[in-house]
Amino acid sequence: VKTHLDCYPCFLRQALEAARFAGAGERQQEGVVQRALGLLANGVDACNPAEIGDKIHRLVRDEVGHHDPYVAVKESSTRQALSFYPRLKSLLAQANDPLMVAVRLSIVGNIIDYAQERRYDLWSAVERVLVQPFAVDHRKAFREALTRTGQLLFLADNAGETVFDRLLIEALDVPVAYAVKGGPILNDATSTDARAAGIDEVAEIVSTGSDAPGTILARCSPEFRKRYAAAPLVVAKGQANYETLDEEGPEVFFALQVKCPVLARDAGVPVGSIVFKRGAAA
Amino acid sequence: VKTHLDCYPCFLRQALEAARFAGAGERQQEGVVQRALGLLANGVDACNPAEIGDKIHRLVRDEVGHHDPYVAVKESSTRQALSFYPRLKSLLAQANDPLMVAVRLSIVGNIIDYAQERRYDLWSAVERVLVQPFAVDHRKAFREALTRTGQLLFLADNAGETVFDRLLIEALDVPVAYAVKGGPILNDATSTDARAAGIDEVAEIVSTGSDAPGTILARCSPEFRKRYAAAPLVVAKGQANYETLDEEGPEVFFALQVKCPVLARDAGVPVGSIVFKRGAAA
Repeated sequence: VKTHLDCYPCFLRQALEAARFAGAGERQQEGVVQRALGLLANGVDACNPAEIGDKIHRLVRDEVGHHDPYVAVKESSTRQALSFYPRLKSLLAQANDPLMVAVRLSIVGNIIDYAQERRYDLWSAVERVLVQPFAVDHRKAFREALTRTGQLLFLADNAGETVFDRLLIEALDVPVAYAVKGGPILNDATSTDARAAGIDEVAEIVSTGSDAPGTILARCSPEFRKRYAAAPLVVAKGQANYETLDEEGPEVFFALQVKCPVLARDAGVPVGSIVFKRGAAA
Repeated sequence: VKTHLDCYPCFLRQALEAARFAGAGERQQEGVVQRALGLLANGVDACNPAEIGDKIHRLVRDEVGHHDPYVAVKESSTRQALSFYPRLKSLLAQANDPLMVAVRLSIVGNIIDYAQERRYDLWSAVERVLVQPFAVDHRKAFREALTRTGQLLFLADNAGETVFDRLLIEALDVPVAYAVKGGPILNDATSTDARAAGIDEVAEIVSTGSDAPGTILARCSPEFRKRYAAAPLVVAKGQANYETLDEEGPEVFFALQVKCPVLARDAGVPVGSIVFKRGAAA
């Protein structure tokens, strides 16, 4: 996915939002916006949106001097998602085909990004997405691949979403490695956030070694790159992973909600779609 | 109203939208975005949002070479609003207090800005705003001022909204001068648009002599400035007029829907409010 002109206003908005999450004063917010303008003016069309997002959030942290602006948001998202865990677990227990429902639940969790400011209606968002038709649905192919490979590398997205991922992992009958960011970026899950969601009880938590959004392989640790190359089956959560890995081949299944027009156009589906999509052959 | 950091992403978005309305190709759109970034990087906090908007739209017209990107949008808005005119007119005929309802109708028309892309639901927007409580309601003071002064200078906003303004003018019993832009800017009404709405049958159409958004007095013609200074009573429609005239004294009544968080904060009301507000004493 290439960065589009429509991404520019969105990057400015994100920079300002992150600066405020980090507690920046008016003066620092202005510094952030000016540096973001300079970054965008230098031309970014060769990069994908996750790479620009990385630069934007790096300059915010540098300008404001806050290492982890979203730490409180992440803790609160995880707590809230955990409070839903028992209801979701019993829903899975009643399902005719738990794996199919568990994949859907994991995508439900991808709403959390959205819901930061409007916590009260997360459950109604959950109920809506639970019955929403898929825009792309490769769940059957995933089940076949899972049976064939008997293992899974899972690329995490946000904190809180981790709890929904845990339900999917529990529904699988194979060993799972759950890859989290090597350091704080946005509200993405780190190993701390994964443990807070109880992922350590159901999977091996591994670090990508990178604190860029999505999974920019060139920025990951050699250990992670080796693991990724060897993985016969990958589930990649969220837009940023789609933006960075969409040309990495049919071993990757992308599980996400489509939250912006640029990605929607690229994927050929409407904004608001839920997608479980196998990567294209290279 | 001062330009706020939150306005920056919005200006970028507007520049891109206007470039597309003007039929710009990908290359021209990129030129527009780059020039807008440069403009914003030069610091704009001393200006009000209407002044920046003026510069943004000027560079779009310059870069794309289109004099009036919104011409088709304006014609279509006027046609659609005219199709509602008979229903609105009979609604006024049944009102207990036609002046009060006519002021509200004129504010209803201020939605048209929003509705460009979603024409089909303009009538439901009309019905909603017709019963919405005012966040600020100085209609009684306006009635008193109207009786006292016996004349009105009306500062227009968008094409299409002009039809709703006409209903207000028809409900008044005083001579009205209807001031429109001196040239195309956004979807703001020019004398052509005012005549297409039938304003020439009910008021004297005058030009501000400026094609900047809102009413930047320093940019208006000497004739208009004289007229403005002599006017004992002014109605100013829309956000841009509020942004540029909010400190011009109690002769001005602002009639608008509040469409963005920056103006909402300044006016101390929620986004989505309808406002009929007397200007503050200097």
